Amino acid sequence: MSENNSVNGTVTAEVLSSPFLKVLLQQIRGQDTYGTYRKWSDELILKPFVVTKQKKREISLEGEVDPITQARIMAFFRAVAAGIEQETGLISQVVIDLSHEGFGWALVFSGRLLLAMKTLRDAHRFGFDSLEKLAEEGEAFVQKGVDLAKRFPEVGKL
Amino acid sequence: MSENNSVNGTVTAEVLSSPFLKVLLQQIRGQDTYGTYRKWSDELILKPFVVTKQKKREISLEGEVDPITQARIMAFFRAVAAGIEQETGLISQVVIDLSHEGFGWALVFSGRLLLAMKTLRDAHRFGFDSLEKLAEEGEAFVQKGVDLAKRFPEVGKL
Repeated sequence: MSENNSVNGTVTAEVLSSPFLKVLLQQIRGQDTYGTYRKWSDELILKPFVVTKQKKREISLEGEVDPITQARIMAFFRAVAAGIEQETGLISQVVIDLSHEGFGWALVFSGRLLLAMKTLRDAHRFGFDSLEKLAEEGEAFVQKGVDLAKRFPEVGKL
Repeated sequence: MSENNSVNGTVTAEVLSSPFLKVLLQQIRGQDTYGTYRKWSDELILKPFVVTKQKKREISLEGEVDPITQARIMAFFRAVAAGIEQETGLISQVVIDLSHEGFGWALVFSGRLLLAMKTLRDAHRFGFDSLEKLAEEGEAFVQKGVDLAKRFPEVGKL
């Protein structure tokens, strides 16, 4: 049993200590006005971000993207924004624009610089294959944003 | 009677020949799949963009922003995008993100550069004091976008 893999849904401490997942958890716990998550483990809070291919097929694309899924998309990109802020000091805006059919954009920007952007398709099925994937993709967005902020500091501060 | 002012709702040809209004009209006529506007004068098509202070007070802020107003906001920023494209060649995306309460963002971007941005408040009441104002504000957005595109060409083409 490798230390890096989750077996039977047990996530190793190593994954949970990923910088991105830490920021994501902070975001979610920070918005938890009613204390719903207070006694939840980190793993339990992050679980809904994992949507396997099999599960994705089972989620219907009819109707609006449900508010809980929308909140999850928002939390992900807010965490990207927070991760970029930690390294660059830039405070950014997050805009999620979703049509009723689950198409749209996720944008993170500061000044006139788009630090992260993603076109959303079938947003009803937003999720990642595993926690490792979630950490990896989040980290990639943060890294790209930090690089852009450093490359074009003037634009980010406009 | 000055040539530059509209009196009794009569708009002088001079205002209608403003570059921004021309682009705006092109946008609206270009999207007119069913030929609704085919026989409408330019003035008639642009009329709904003029919302006087008095009229604004009469528009209720309750409920969703109606689809026709949303289409008008979209047309305005699409025209901004088209105006910028004419001068810079940059093809941009327009994102309008409105909450149910009429708050949100209008964003026009190309590559990683935000060419135009506006926070929207009380979007139910979106409109301008006069056609002159509409032309002026649109032109200002275009000009600012063109300036940014020229200042940071690398970012706009990312």
